[in-house]
Amino acid sequence: MRIHVVNPNATASMTAQIGRVARRVARPGTEIDLATVAGAPVSIEGYADEALSVPGLLAAIRAAEVRGADAHVIACFDDPGLDAAREVAAAPVIGLCQAAMQAATILSARFSVVTTLPRSVPIIEDLADRYGMGRRCRRVRAIDLPVLAVEDAAGGAHELIAAATRAARDEDGAEAVVLGCAGMAELCDRLTAETGILVIDGVTAAVTLAEALAATTYRTSKAGAYAAPRPKAGGLFPEAA
Amino acid sequence: MRIHVVNPNATASMTAQIGRVARRVARPGTEIDLATVAGAPVSIEGYADEALSVPGLLAAIRAAEVRGADAHVIACFDDPGLDAAREVAAAPVIGLCQAAMQAATILSARFSVVTTLPRSVPIIEDLADRYGMGRRCRRVRAIDLPVLAVEDAAGGAHELIAAATRAARDEDGAEAVVLGCAGMAELCDRLTAETGILVIDGVTAAVTLAEALAATTYRTSKAGAYAAPRPKAGGLFPEAA
Amino acid sequence: MRIHVVNPNATASMTAQIGRVARRVARPGTEIDLATVAGAPVSIEGYADEALSVPGLLAAIRAAEVRGADAHVIACFDDPGLDAAREVAAAPVIGLCQAAMQAATILSARFSVVTTLPRSVPIIEDLADRYGMGRRCRRVRAIDLPVLAVEDAAGGAHELIAAATRAARDEDGAEAVVLGCAGMAELCDRLTAETGILVIDGVTAAVTLAEALAATTYRTSKAGAYAAPRPKAGGLFPEAA
Amino acid sequence: MRIHVVNPNATASMTAQIGRVARRVARPGTEIDLATVAGAPVSIEGYADEALSVPGLLAAIRAAEVRGADAHVIACFDDPGLDAAREVAAAPVIGLCQAAMQAATILSARFSVVTTLPRSVPIIEDLADRYGMGRRCRRVRAIDLPVLAVEDAAGGAHELIAAATRAARDEDGAEAVVLGCAGMAELCDRLTAETGILVIDGVTAAVTLAEALAATTYRTSKAGAYAAPRPKAGGLFPEAA
Amino acid sequence: MRIHVVNPNATASMTAQIGRVARRVARPGTEIDLATVAGAPVSIEGYADEALSVPGLLAAIRAAEVRGADAHVIACFDDPGLDAAREVAAAPVIGLCQAAMQAATILSARFSVVTTLPRSVPIIEDLADRYGMGRRCRRVRAIDLPVLAVEDAAGGAHELIAAATRAARDEDGAEAVVLGCAGMAELCDRLTAETGILVIDGVTAAVTLAEALAATTYRTSKAGAYAAPRPKAGGLFPEAA
Amino acid sequence: MRIHVVNPNATASMTAQIGRVARRVARPGTEIDLATVAGAPVSIEGYADEALSVPGLLAAIRAAEVRGADAHVIACFDDPGLDAAREVAAAPVIGLCQAAMQAATILSARFSVVTTLPRSVPIIEDLADRYGMGRRCRRVRAIDLPVLAVEDAAGGAHELIAAATRAARDEDGAEAVVLGCAGMAELCDRLTAETGILVIDGVTAAVTLAEALAATTYRTSKAGAYAAPRPKAGGLFPEAA
Repeated sequence: MRIHVVNPNATASMTAQIGRVARRVARPGTEIDLATVAGAPVSIEGYADEALSVPGLLAAIRAAEVRGADAHVIACFDDPGLDAAREVAAAPVIGLCQAAMQAATILSARFSVVTTLPRSVPIIEDLADRYGMGRRCRRVRAIDLPVLAVEDAAGGAHELIAAATRAARDEDGAEAVVLGCAGMAELCDRLTAETGILVIDGVTAAVTLAEALAATTYRTSKAGAYAAPRPKAGGLFPEAA
Repeated sequence: MRIHVVNPNATASMTAQIGRVARRVARPGTEIDLATVAGAPVSIEGYADEALSVPGLLAAIRAAEVRGADAHVIACFDDPGLDAAREVAAAPVIGLCQAAMQAATILSARFSVVTTLPRSVPIIEDLADRYGMGRRCRRVRAIDLPVLAVEDAAGGAHELIAAATRAARDEDGAEAVVLGCAGMAELCDRLTAETGILVIDGVTAAVTLAEALAATTYRTSKAGAYAAPRPKAGGLFPEAA
Repeated sequence: MRIHVVNPNATASMTAQIGRVARRVARPGTEIDLATVAGAPVSIEGYADEALSVPGLLAAIRAAEVRGADAHVIACFDDPGLDAAREVAAAPVIGLCQAAMQAATILSARFSVVTTLPRSVPIIEDLADRYGMGRRCRRVRAIDLPVLAVEDAAGGAHELIAAATRAARDEDGAEAVVLGCAGMAELCDRLTAETGILVIDGVTAAVTLAEALAATTYRTSKAGAYAAPRPKAGGLFPEAA
Repeated sequence: MRIHVVNPNATASMTAQIGRVARRVARPGTEIDLATVAGAPVSIEGYADEALSVPGLLAAIRAAEVRGADAHVIACFDDPGLDAAREVAAAPVIGLCQAAMQAATILSARFSVVTTLPRSVPIIEDLADRYGMGRRCRRVRAIDLPVLAVEDAAGGAHELIAAATRAARDEDGAEAVVLGCAGMAELCDRLTAETGILVIDGVTAAVTLAEALAATTYRTSKAGAYAAPRPKAGGLFPEAA
Repeated sequence: MRIHVVNPNATASMTAQIGRVARRVARPGTEIDLATVAGAPVSIEGYADEALSVPGLLAAIRAAEVRGADAHVIACFDDPGLDAAREVAAAPVIGLCQAAMQAATILSARFSVVTTLPRSVPIIEDLADRYGMGRRCRRVRAIDLPVLAVEDAAGGAHELIAAATRAARDEDGAEAVVLGCAGMAELCDRLTAETGILVIDGVTAAVTLAEALAATTYRTSKAGAYAAPRPKAGGLFPEAA
Repeated sequence: MRIHVVNPNATASMTAQIGRVARRVARPGTEIDLATVAGAPVSIEGYADEALSVPGLLAAIRAAEVRGADAHVIACFDDPGLDAAREVAAAPVIGLCQAAMQAATILSARFSVVTTLPRSVPIIEDLADRYGMGRRCRRVRAIDLPVLAVEDAAGGAHELIAAATRAARDEDGAEAVVLGCAGMAELCDRLTAETGILVIDGVTAAVTLAEALAATTYRTSKAGAYAAPRPKAGGLFPEAA
C-alpha cells in the first residue's frame, strides 16, 4: 500500500518530521510517498499562505496519482486545498484537521485544539463547524508562536504547548487535546505523558485513516462536488491536453 | 492486532455475514475476534431492542478486553451502547453509523442512507445530528422491510435497496449512499456496480477504522464522559468486587 | 389520574424523596404510582449505569401500563431509556431533563444546570442539544460529588450546589438554574430563597407536565419512532408470547 | 386555580371556541379567565397584525395579573407578544406554538404543522427554530385559507386541513401533526379519528401546560430578559405612575 | 435618493444624534428623512418597550412611503418591528443590528457587541442567531447603564464602553466590536482611535446599506412573509378603507 | 470613489458583462476599476478552478490597493479567495454570494439559488451555511449548463434559468431567487419581469454593498483572521522584500 503524504509548505525539516511520524505509525507494508510543495510558502499561517500553496499541492496530488497512490494525506492542520484535491484524486484524500477531529470524537466526548498563532483560531473553529465538530470542540487555543518556531527547541514552544494542554484539561473540560499544527507531531507522546490527558496528533490520525480508507474499495465519489475538474483553458486539465 | 467485532443481536447468520465482511477487508495480520450477544433480541429495530441488547453487549466488551482487544466494533448501524462501551473499554470503540458517516464525508460532499424500517429513519437522523453530519446527510430512506428479511434472497430486499440507492442518487443529489443496516454489508459491491454510485458499508468502514485507531497509541480518554463506570451495587463493577 | 413515577436506580431513599416531591406538587386527585427499579445500579452516573437500568425500567413501564397509567415520569435527570419507554408506553412518557428544560425556556431566556459529577456535563449538554435547548443553556456546572452524596447532609452538598447556583447567576448570566439530579429535588425551594434566582427541579417539572399531558387526549404516537417494539425472540415481546 | 386565556385578535367567535376547548380540557377546579383584545385586528395573519395586537394584549395581561392569574395563555399560534408578556407578568406565560411543539416532541419524534396562509409558513418555521424544534419539525404546510375562513363550515377548511394532515403523515414522515391556528382547535379530535395520526391542538397543549406551571411554585424569572419593563414616559409603566 | 430614518423611541435628542451620524455618512445627494415615533417609550429597553413603539413605527413607515422613500432605516439596535415594517413597505427596510452584523462579518471573522443593559444581552444574542451570525458573534457585553445615560457625558458611559471594547478585544478574541445601541453612534470613531480595534456603529452601517439597496431596483418581496398586511377590521388597512 | 471589481476567471466577455452591470448600478461618482485574472481558468466550476484562480486574484487585489481602491468585489458567485483577499486588502472585500444572500435576507424571508452545474450545489450550500444563511436558503437549483454556456443565447440558458426560477417560486416557497453565477447578471431584470418574483444578481448586490462599506470609515480588521499575511519565503510578502 502506498500513502502519499504531502507537506503543502516548502520547509524540508517539517516534511522530514512528518515523514518520521508517518513511518512510525504506518503498517510494515505501507510505503510513505513523501512530498514537499516546492515554491510554496515556508509555513501556512492564514488564508493567503494556504492559497499560494494549493496550486503546487494539486500538482503534487496529480503526480502522486500517476506514481500510484492508495490514499493522500495533506499534512497541514488547516487542510488547505482539501476539496480541490478530492476533485483531482481518485484515491481518498485526508486532511489532518478532519482526521484528528474525527479521531477525537471517537476517543472523547469533548476536545480542545492547541495551535500556533491567534489568527488560526477562527480558521480552525470554522473547520470544526464545517466538519460538524463545532459542539464537540470546547476551544481552540493559540500559543502565539509562529509555525516554524515550534521546531526550535530553544524557543520554548514545548512549554507553551504543555501549558495550553493543561489549561484545556483544567479550564475547558477537554477530555482530549488535538495538536493544531503538523509541526507539533513529534511532541505528542511526551505531552500525553506530561499532562496525563490524551493528546492527538493530526499526522498520526491522518496516516492511519488513510491506510484504513485505502484498505476499502471505496474511492472518492465522482458524482457531484468531487467530480474531476472540467477540461478548460487555464484549468488543471487544459482543453488542448 | 486483534479487533473485537460484536454483533449486538442474537442472530448467528448475521454475525457470520459480518465476520466474512470484516475478515475480507481486514489486514492479513489482524485477528477478527467475533462475538454475538446471546440472549439479545434477534434484530435491533428501535430503541427497546437496543436497550435490551446493551447489557449483554457491555459484558461482551469487558470479556474482549480481558482476552485482549486493540479496538472494538459494535456491528449494528444504530450504534447501540456506543457511549457506554467507551466507558467500559480502554481500547477505541467504533460504531457502524459513525464510521460510515465519517468515511462518507471524506469521500463525498453529500450522502444519503438506505435503511430497513421507517421507524429507524428518525433514529439515524438523530445519530447524524449527534455526529455533526446532519448537513451532509441528504436523506435517510427506508425500504420498509424488517432487518432479518434483508438476508432472505427471495424477499426482494436487494431490489428494494437498489431502487432506494438510485433514488438517492437521482432525487436527493446524494454523491454516496451509506447502507444503514449491518445485514446489508455483503450487498455493497454489487450495489455500487449496479448503480454506479459509491455505496458504503458500515462494517467495512468500522473495521478499517478500528484497525487505524488501534495502530495509534491513542486509547479512549478516561478524563470525563468515558471514565470507567464507578463501582457500585447494581453497576457493572459492584463495590464488593 | 394516575402518574407512574419510576426511579431508575435502586436506592429506596431516593425514590422516597422523589415521591415526597411528586406528591407535594401533584393535584389532590392524582395518584402517584411510585416505583424503584430493583437490581438497577444504586445511582445513575454515566452511560453504563444508564444502560444497566433500562431493561428493568422498561419492565416497570410495562407493569405500570397494565396497572393503568395516565402518564409516566422517568425520575432521573439523564433521561435514561426515554425513547425506549415511549415505544413501550401508550401514555406519555416524561423525562426530568426534558421537562425541566422546557419549563426553564418558558420561565427564563437563559438557564444553567447544576449537576453532580463532571462526567455528567457532556451527557447533559448533549441532551440539551437533542431537546433543542443548546442555545438557551448557558452552562452545565458540576459540584464534583457523587449522586448519593447529595442526600448526605454532612457532606456539604447543599453548600456546593448553592455556590454553583450563585456562580451561574453571576458568571453565566443565567436567569434560572435547573437542578441536574433527581436527588437534589428537595433542596429547590431553599436554594431559590437563598440565592434569589429561580431554581427549577426536574421532579416538579416532570410530574406537573405529566399531569398536563395526561389531561389531554393525546397519547404517544405509534406512527414511527415510538411504534411498539416488534415481537421477536429476545425482544420485549417474544414472538411466542 | 385561575388561568388567563387571552385571544389577541378581536373576533369573539374565536374567543368563544378557544374558551370551549380550554374549559373542556381544564381541571374541574380551574377557572378559565377568558379575554379578547378589543380593537385588535380580527385575525392575526402576519407580523403587522401581530404588532397591532400586542399593546392591547399587554394591557390584558396586566389586568389579569391584577385580577389574579396563576398562568397566562396567549391563544394565537404565532405567539405574538410572548416575550413582552413575560416581562409584564409574574405568572408563567404560555404560547400556543411553543406549548404544542413541546408536547409534540414528547409524543412523537417528528411532527409537521398545518396552518392557514402561506405567509405564515416562515413565521412558524422561525418559531420552531427559536424554540429549538427546527430539526423535529418536518414541514409547515399551509391550506391557503384565511384564519376566519377556518370557522366557516361551508368553506371546506376541514377538508383542506384533513388533506394536509394526511400529506404530512404520508409524505413528510410526520408522526404527529400540530394545528397551526387557534381557530382549528375544535377540529382536533375529528382529524385524529379521520386520519389515524396524532393531531395536537395548541389551545389544549397550552392550557394544560399553564395549569402544570401554575401548580409549581415557579414564576417568571425577573433576573434578566424578563425583568419588569423599566418605568419611563411612553412605556408600560410611565415614570409619573 | 431619500432614506427614511426613524427613531422608534420618543427621545428627540437621540433622533438628532442619529440624524447627525446619518447625514455625515450619507452621499451628497441623499436626503435623510428623519422621524421620531411620538408617544413611543423614551427608550427601547426590552420587549415591552419594543412592542409599544411598533404601532407608531409602522405608521411612520407608511407615512414615509407616501412621502416617497427609497429605503427605510429603523434606528434602534433591537430592530423592533423589522418584519412588520417589511410587510408595510415596498422599499427595503434595514435594521441597525442586522446591518451592523452583516458589515462586521465582512470586515472581521469574529466580533463582539457592547450594549447597555444586561436584559438586552439575550435579545441581541437571539437576533444574532436569527440573522445567522451566532457563530461569528463572540459575546454580547453590557455596560449596565440605561440607554438614556449613554448620552450623559458626566455618567461615565464612554469609559464603560471603552473598557468593554478592550475586554472584547483582549478576552473574547473579537476582531471588531459592534456598538449595540443607537445612542452610542457618535462615540464610534473615538472608540476606534482609543482601542485600536475596529468599532462599528449600526446607524452608519444601516444608512449606507439602505443607500446601497435603494440603488438597486430590488424592492421587498411581496411573495410570502412580507406580503402587504391583509385588509381587515383592526388591521393596518381596515376593510372599509 | 473607486471600486475594484475583479473577475477571477480569464474570460474577457464575462468581465465585460460584469463591468456593464457594475457601471449601470454604481453611483455617478464611482469609478469601476475592472480587472480580469489573466491566466486563470476561463470559468470557475468547482474547487480546483477556484484554487487556480486565487493566486492571480490576490495579485490583482494587491495591484488595485496600490492604484487605490475603496473596496473590492470578487465577481464570481463561489466567492473564491474571499478570506485570503481580506488578509491582503485594507479596503473591504465583498463576494457575490455573501452580498447577494445578505440582500436576499433583507428583502425576503426565504430564497432559493439558481446556479449552473450540479457540482456547484454543495459548494453554494456550504457557503450559505458559512454565512449563516442555511436556514433562509430553501434550495440551490442547477440548470446543468456550464458557466460559459450561460452567455450563449442560442443555448437555451435563459429558458432553463426562468424555469428554475418558477420552480423555486412554486415548489420551494422561495420569496426571492438569487442568481448563482456572475454570468447571469444581465438576465436579472428580464427574469423578474417574466416570473413576477424578485430576482437578485450578485454583481448588483456586491457593487452597491461595496460602495456602502467604502462610504463608511471602516476597513478590514487586521486584529485576527484578516491580519496581513506574514512575510516569508514563498509567501505573498517574501522576507527579502
